[in-house]
Amino acid sequence: MGETQRMGKQSIEFTKAPHVIGAASVVGKKEGEGPLGNSFDIICEDDRFGEDNWEKSESTMQNEAIQTALKNVGVRPAQVRYLFGGDLLGQLIATSFGVEELNIPLFGLYGACSTCGESLSLAAMTVAAGYADYAAAVTSSHFASAEKQFRFPLAYGNQRPLAATWTVTGSGAFVLAQKGGHARIAGITTGKVVDFGVKDSLNMGACMAPAACDTIYQNLMDFNRQPSDYDRIITGDLGSVGQKILIDLMKEKGFDISGVHMDCGIEIYDSEKQDTHAGGSGCGCSAVTLAAMILPKICRGVWKRVLFVPTGALLSTVSFNEGQSVPGIAHGVIIEHC
Amino acid sequence: MGETQRMGKQSIEFTKAPHVIGAASVVGKKEGEGPLGNSFDIICEDDRFGEDNWEKSESTMQNEAIQTALKNVGVRPAQVRYLFGGDLLGQLIATSFGVEELNIPLFGLYGACSTCGESLSLAAMTVAAGYADYAAAVTSSHFASAEKQFRFPLAYGNQRPLAATWTVTGSGAFVLAQKGGHARIAGITTGKVVDFGVKDSLNMGACMAPAACDTIYQNLMDFNRQPSDYDRIITGDLGSVGQKILIDLMKEKGFDISGVHMDCGIEIYDSEKQDTHAGGSGCGCSAVTLAAMILPKICRGVWKRVLFVPTGALLSTVSFNEGQSVPGIAHGVIIEHC
Repeated sequence: MGETQRMGKQSIEFTKAPHVIGAASVVGKKEGEGPLGNSFDIICEDDRFGEDNWEKSESTMQNEAIQTALKNVGVRPAQVRYLFGGDLLGQLIATSFGVEELNIPLFGLYGACSTCGESLSLAAMTVAAGYADYAAAVTSSHFASAEKQFRFPLAYGNQRPLAATWTVTGSGAFVLAQKGGHARIAGITTGKVVDFGVKDSLNMGACMAPAACDTIYQNLMDFNRQPSDYDRIITGDLGSVGQKILIDLMKEKGFDISGVHMDCGIEIYDSEKQDTHAGGSGCGCSAVTLAAMILPKICRGVWKRVLFVPTGALLSTVSFNEGQSVPGIAHGVIIEHC
Repeated sequence: MGETQRMGKQSIEFTKAPHVIGAASVVGKKEGEGPLGNSFDIICEDDRFGEDNWEKSESTMQNEAIQTALKNVGVRPAQVRYLFGGDLLGQLIATSFGVEELNIPLFGLYGACSTCGESLSLAAMTVAAGYADYAAAVTSSHFASAEKQFRFPLAYGNQRPLAATWTVTGSGAFVLAQKGGHARIAGITTGKVVDFGVKDSLNMGACMAPAACDTIYQNLMDFNRQPSDYDRIITGDLGSVGQKILIDLMKEKGFDISGVHMDCGIEIYDSEKQDTHAGGSGCGCSAVTLAAMILPKICRGVWKRVLFVPTGALLSTVSFNEGQSVPGIAHGVIIEHC
């Protein structure tokens, strides 16, 4: 405890690293047809998840994700002391209605698509400090509720530029505890708001890449590491356009991450066959990729140490229409095999 | 550290209670004309705070609040390791643009009007665990940006029912540290989503009272206390309608809080002279009342122990228009003279 845990300017290295003992991913039809299709816990053929509107669909999906993650490790909701959750919708309605019946003390979070990293960071801090035996983290996004919130009515059939990403319909949930399982959160690097003045809300990769760069660079500084000290540095949803920018920005700072960089937004769809353009995005994108692909590889020891960096674009239709830029934020989480 | 800090089902008693070493309140004209007018740090005669739209006005107000709180105690932004912040607007745009230039690692939070309690809770957990020497918490609301977000265009001149509250134009910021000053956060009780099925978005007091009751009751149980063990139990923004409901609900559970209950929403305006109906509301309501009135009384020893319980109504225009109920959440923070 205390001083020794803090690393450099923005990071913590946990002396008692909390473990990610359970995880679950729930996705929609399109995600189920993508390259990770075999790895998700639940693929729902009906993107409405049995509900009569998109927001309730997202809530139900989020609830399924938490319930499944808890069931996978035999933990009851009543044993979970804190739930850290969020989504992309105004006033977090997917989360409020999604977690309601669980009766778990809730910290609602908003960090756009970086929220998965934010929730894991705070859950890890909470468990490592001894405030809880079990804490849970959950995030979600839904293509249809996000399009309705941020862009055009689906029926309008709006054309999408090639730099645009496709919001993932998915929710990932994680259960943290002081021990158990084979993945631990060794440390975190908490991001700041980074604004390069980009104003194109249909090119989120360009908006978020500077924030990803800022957090990754700070992580390498704080821990005195090289990119090769990580088996993978995995961003949330930069997509193919943002990835190029990130690699260039990191080179300017003296680090070549091209050999270890991976992006959940690129992994989750086959962009050519699935017409998703630059890749996947949304709170759910990094969360389900972590649950379905990254964590299993870490648990099996294929990867020993990963820097997981969900990235968020901070905008609303109001700020966008008022001509504001789209700043980004990215939260880094170091996950190790154990 | 560890087990001994946890109390009952939902609470923590800090073994090393973090101190609230600094605070600041920035408000608009109407709040400045109210009963607490003499106590605010900054009253802006121009509710636009020099900006050309309401959202930017709220961001500027929030920035002023943090800068003033830090200046009051001689702490530089670079010394603050974490900022916990939030507001009521979709995707937290007031906060994103308000804190941007400070360059402090940010955890964005959403708990509707309970966010002040949520931010103080997480900042206290962070400082008490030794993750930071200084952490800051900030929340804001703005009458005009909130009306635009949740209700009608101002120019429409909509009539308001008597149960309606008036969103406070204000931002409160707090600086927490391991020592200093004469107020400490002795413990917290973290709230759950509580849904009594109330669907009237113009009667937020009724929506939030059950959540306030749930958190206050759990606090008394977890700490084995009576209402009289607190000099005041202070809710965020129930207003006069919600206050009656809360007192009744607590009586049903066997506790009479009528002698010690106070509500920031009732304190902040003179409802008859200022035509605010049931009282004030918004993230800023509890935050500026805490900074301007509650904390100074605690620091002077007028009150030795207060249970501060900001209350939030979890809705968006989307969830409301889809016929969903308005659940509530409330986060309790025990603040003591020291």
